[in-house]
Amino acid sequence: MPWFIHRVPVRFHEVDSAGIVFFARIFEYHHNAFEAWMRSIGHPLDPHSRDRRYAIPLAHAEADYHAPIRLGQEVEVRLRVAAVGTKSLTMASWIGSLEGDDLATVKTVHVCIDRDTWRPAPIPDAFREILLDHHKPEAT
Amino acid sequence: MPWFIHRVPVRFHEVDSAGIVFFARIFEYHHNAFEAWMRSIGHPLDPHSRDRRYAIPLAHAEADYHAPIRLGQEVEVRLRVAAVGTKSLTMASWIGSLEGDDLATVKTVHVCIDRDTWRPAPIPDAFREILLDHHKPEAT
Amino acid sequence: MPWFIHRVPVRFHEVDSAGIVFFARIFEYHHNAFEAWMRSIGHPLDPHSRDRRYAIPLAHAEADYHAPIRLGQEVEVRLRVAAVGTKSLTMASWIGSLEGDDLATVKTVHVCIDRDTWRPAPIPDAFREILLDHHKPEAT
Amino acid sequence: MPWFIHRVPVRFHEVDSAGIVFFARIFEYHHNAFEAWMRSIGHPLDPHSRDRRYAIPLAHAEADYHAPIRLGQEVEVRLRVAAVGTKSLTMASWIGSLEGDDLATVKTVHVCIDRDTWRPAPIPDAFREILLDHHKPEAT
Repeated sequence: MPWFIHRVPVRFHEVDSAGIVFFARIFEYHHNAFEAWMRSIGHPLDPHSRDRRYAIPLAHAEADYHAPIRLGQEVEVRLRVAAVGTKSLTMASWIGSLEGDDLATVKTVHVCIDRDTWRPAPIPDAFREILLDHHKPEAT
Repeated sequence: MPWFIHRVPVRFHEVDSAGIVFFARIFEYHHNAFEAWMRSIGHPLDPHSRDRRYAIPLAHAEADYHAPIRLGQEVEVRLRVAAVGTKSLTMASWIGSLEGDDLATVKTVHVCIDRDTWRPAPIPDAFREILLDHHKPEAT
Repeated sequence: MPWFIHRVPVRFHEVDSAGIVFFARIFEYHHNAFEAWMRSIGHPLDPHSRDRRYAIPLAHAEADYHAPIRLGQEVEVRLRVAAVGTKSLTMASWIGSLEGDDLATVKTVHVCIDRDTWRPAPIPDAFREILLDHHKPEAT
Repeated sequence: MPWFIHRVPVRFHEVDSAGIVFFARIFEYHHNAFEAWMRSIGHPLDPHSRDRRYAIPLAHAEADYHAPIRLGQEVEVRLRVAAVGTKSLTMASWIGSLEGDDLATVKTVHVCIDRDTWRPAPIPDAFREILLDHHKPEAT
């Protein structure tokens, strides 16, 4: 899988009073790309979908900040499936400027759970196959 | 009813790159006070409550901004039930500094709906009585 | 001027626990369209720009909600300059589904101020001309 | 140092359409506690303060999620200075229910920079002393 590319302009209200994007917004950029990717593979995130027995809440999230992101910039989020386990998956993204400057990296670990019991459950085969198709263990 | 008073410090991430609270955050201040008031009257907002047949989504919201709100300030939200109709209610708030400076006013109109049909429905009597007890038509 | 069209997918985190877009997010949709429009006319919102002597903070904001907006939808924001005064301007938007359903309308009134004194000031001629070029007093 | 305790009710708009607090909001809980603590030690975060030559932007942030946080809950954030370096500091927090249930942990690493050059700089002595006074390397 190549990276899944998602571009977003920095919004006025995402920039804090220091003039740079508030650190927690980076996780929204990553998640917005994740949502766009899930839509693109025909698996939109929808907690109210009746025919979906599982959900993939987060167990872990982390970000490294390499350079400040400022108002007026447009950023490119490059998302990939970094790891696929039996009951978990890891999404990673590289966030950069349109000129290719490295701004941040984000990683989220999601656990597959049964919606009724909220307990870990194996990732359903159909979804697992898509994940493996898009698996890209290395960032480069 | 006296005003329902709710105090909140301005958060770092609510201040935009102009150094003042982003206009849409004012609606969150108002709604946070509304949530605190709903809890205080024993009627917490809870869309998943099984024994609640109605919901009160917004039909209208407006705000007037009188002075910039800055990081470092604590603001006081004074909330009141401004109007009670058969199927709707109006919440109003005055937002000021702790020194009494007028910063903004907010008004939201909520329509009572039946949750199953999403159609306007009369406000249930028990909730309506509470609203009337806290009715304060005038801002002063 | 035709409408300025700005499309956005509803984000997972913009939907509240009632399953619909939180009312205050509508103001962000409107403002995001406003920012995109300001960029498109070569006048990006930038409070730190050194060669800009004025700012246009909000004096008033209002929204009417006509139908719930749900996760999975993409919405279209149609923005126009609704009024141009000597020291103020009004931006209005219609927010609808891609199928043309009316979901909400938003209006914001901005006051032109001198950045140093924070006092109302005439809209600079160059910006005023652009506003008049894009003036569309009627919604239809 | 004992923990710095900061309690916050879960807000309606922080809960996503899955009915639980959106993962990125956890970082806001942590940062709100950090802001409250900075105010409490007489060092409020203020990027526009003229007599402050340094800033402490984030280099890293991470969170582990142990249980879903739901609307109607109030959470307790227990914040501590986890590490103090020459040019960096680590803040850690434990987030739990009022009944003591473990909900999440958060960690942020901040780098001290010179505001003019945006380059790493030693933490000023006065601030460093306060940090050491509140140093609590162990979570228990």
